[in-house]
Amino acid sequence: MKPVIGFIGLGLMGKPMAQNLLRAGFPLVVWNRTKAKADELTKSGAKLASSPRDAASRCDVLITIVSDPPALEEVLWGSQGALDALKRGATLIDSSTVSPDLARRVAAECEKRGIDFLDAPVTGGTWGAEKGELVFMVGGKAAVLERMTSILSAMGKKFPLLGPNGAGQTVKLAMNLLLAIQVDGFAEALALVTAAGVPADRLMEIFLSSMGRSGVLEVKAPMMVKGEFPASFPLRLMHKDVRLALELAREKGIMLPAGAAAYATYSAVKDVSNDDPDFSAISRFWRK
Amino acid sequence: MKPVIGFIGLGLMGKPMAQNLLRAGFPLVVWNRTKAKADELTKSGAKLASSPRDAASRCDVLITIVSDPPALEEVLWGSQGALDALKRGATLIDSSTVSPDLARRVAAECEKRGIDFLDAPVTGGTWGAEKGELVFMVGGKAAVLERMTSILSAMGKKFPLLGPNGAGQTVKLAMNLLLAIQVDGFAEALALVTAAGVPADRLMEIFLSSMGRSGVLEVKAPMMVKGEFPASFPLRLMHKDVRLALELAREKGIMLPAGAAAYATYSAVKDVSNDDPDFSAISRFWRK
Repeated sequence: MKPVIGFIGLGLMGKPMAQNLLRAGFPLVVWNRTKAKADELTKSGAKLASSPRDAASRCDVLITIVSDPPALEEVLWGSQGALDALKRGATLIDSSTVSPDLARRVAAECEKRGIDFLDAPVTGGTWGAEKGELVFMVGGKAAVLERMTSILSAMGKKFPLLGPNGAGQTVKLAMNLLLAIQVDGFAEALALVTAAGVPADRLMEIFLSSMGRSGVLEVKAPMMVKGEFPASFPLRLMHKDVRLALELAREKGIMLPAGAAAYATYSAVKDVSNDDPDFSAISRFWRK
Repeated sequence: MKPVIGFIGLGLMGKPMAQNLLRAGFPLVVWNRTKAKADELTKSGAKLASSPRDAASRCDVLITIVSDPPALEEVLWGSQGALDALKRGATLIDSSTVSPDLARRVAAECEKRGIDFLDAPVTGGTWGAEKGELVFMVGGKAAVLERMTSILSAMGKKFPLLGPNGAGQTVKLAMNLLLAIQVDGFAEALALVTAAGVPADRLMEIFLSSMGRSGVLEVKAPMMVKGEFPASFPLRLMHKDVRLALELAREKGIMLPAGAAAYATYSAVKDVSNDDPDFSAISRFWRK
């Protein structure tokens, strides 16, 4: 019999992930802060929980994917938090992007309660979430990951074990740091060419035929050249992830000069954007 | 009958470019500051010029590809400089990476003398140079580019006209700015993961299966993980190109925060490296 899965966080990523679990035949109990976001899923057969605690009490495996560390803390440790309601022997998989330090705190609290824990943040965007082709960056024990394989396979194509709890979050922060810097890099290249009066319409074609080729150029650059930034990965979340990466760096005693510079630029754009744009809106820094 | 081509600058890029011209049947007159670098070419049938001026006086089309602005100025305007020896009606193609401003100065001097000029810096690396698959970023007049097509085709696969003289250099500086920032970005991501105690051996595989995929990850990251930096594109030249990009930005009144941060890091590594490493050696900034 398939385990009952609790699923908390039905945002851009969480909703398609939960849908894939349903499609794969897992019994699902869902909770989301904004209740309406659960409608599609409950119509497809998911049960609605009244709180994180309620979802936790009704499942064998709980998956959380919320927007930031405070949201995760509220969902786990708040007055209606999930952690105290999880059964001994249950498994918690957190796919939010948070600090490795918070992942280890969650792991320690789980261990006290006889709960297995994986930190398993994802990459692949909404497209990957919909297609079930996410990559999970996993921190935790091999045996736990092994037991979770059939569940993770319903949502993703790869789930490399990167080390003990926290390692998944570490690699995820490094990845988003790289993406943030790459998008900033293209924004700066575009700004330079534009300021020098050269049309930008052939930039992508040229950069793509060089070592400058990248996923960022294919996916983000066309929007940046047009000046349109519909949120695929919101700037406010990338801003948070770069902050977490910089905090981790400070903790470990290293400098990330380009990361720090990019963070300042994302911050400046965040402060003047009221439309919750994609992180590629960093280009606005240079628009008159 | 094919035009005689003068070729000045037989470095990592220039030598294979000149070899491809020879293979395509163009009569070639070569000059290089270090004479020994011309040996292979003269054995294959190229004539050796005694100076830039001598090369210029013996050709219909002169191609220059030297390491930086002062080297180009010396080759064109030095006591044995090429510019005064070029025939009226000749064409000068400069494939060095220099400032758009210098490209426009060269264009103005050429115009006075009835010489056609293209700024046509290249991308594609030594591999592209050897295979004849370079991309030339061209500034100048369409009619001149048209006349040069058979020559450029012997060395490259694309030669987009990007605008008047200087536009080729502008796009090249933007491209190298992007590459410099991308390599710095991976170096920072690698440093973060390493400092946090997570093995880096699966980083590339994971990043490549995300939007983080890039030419930099394929070509440079494996060396950076190993800590080996044999020069494909020397750090001293990338350092110069980022400086030129920052100077152009200042001239145009825009800030490039990540570019400036990357420049500082390349500078720091340049100061402590005595082995003329590849620009991916920026990773040394974080190595104990």
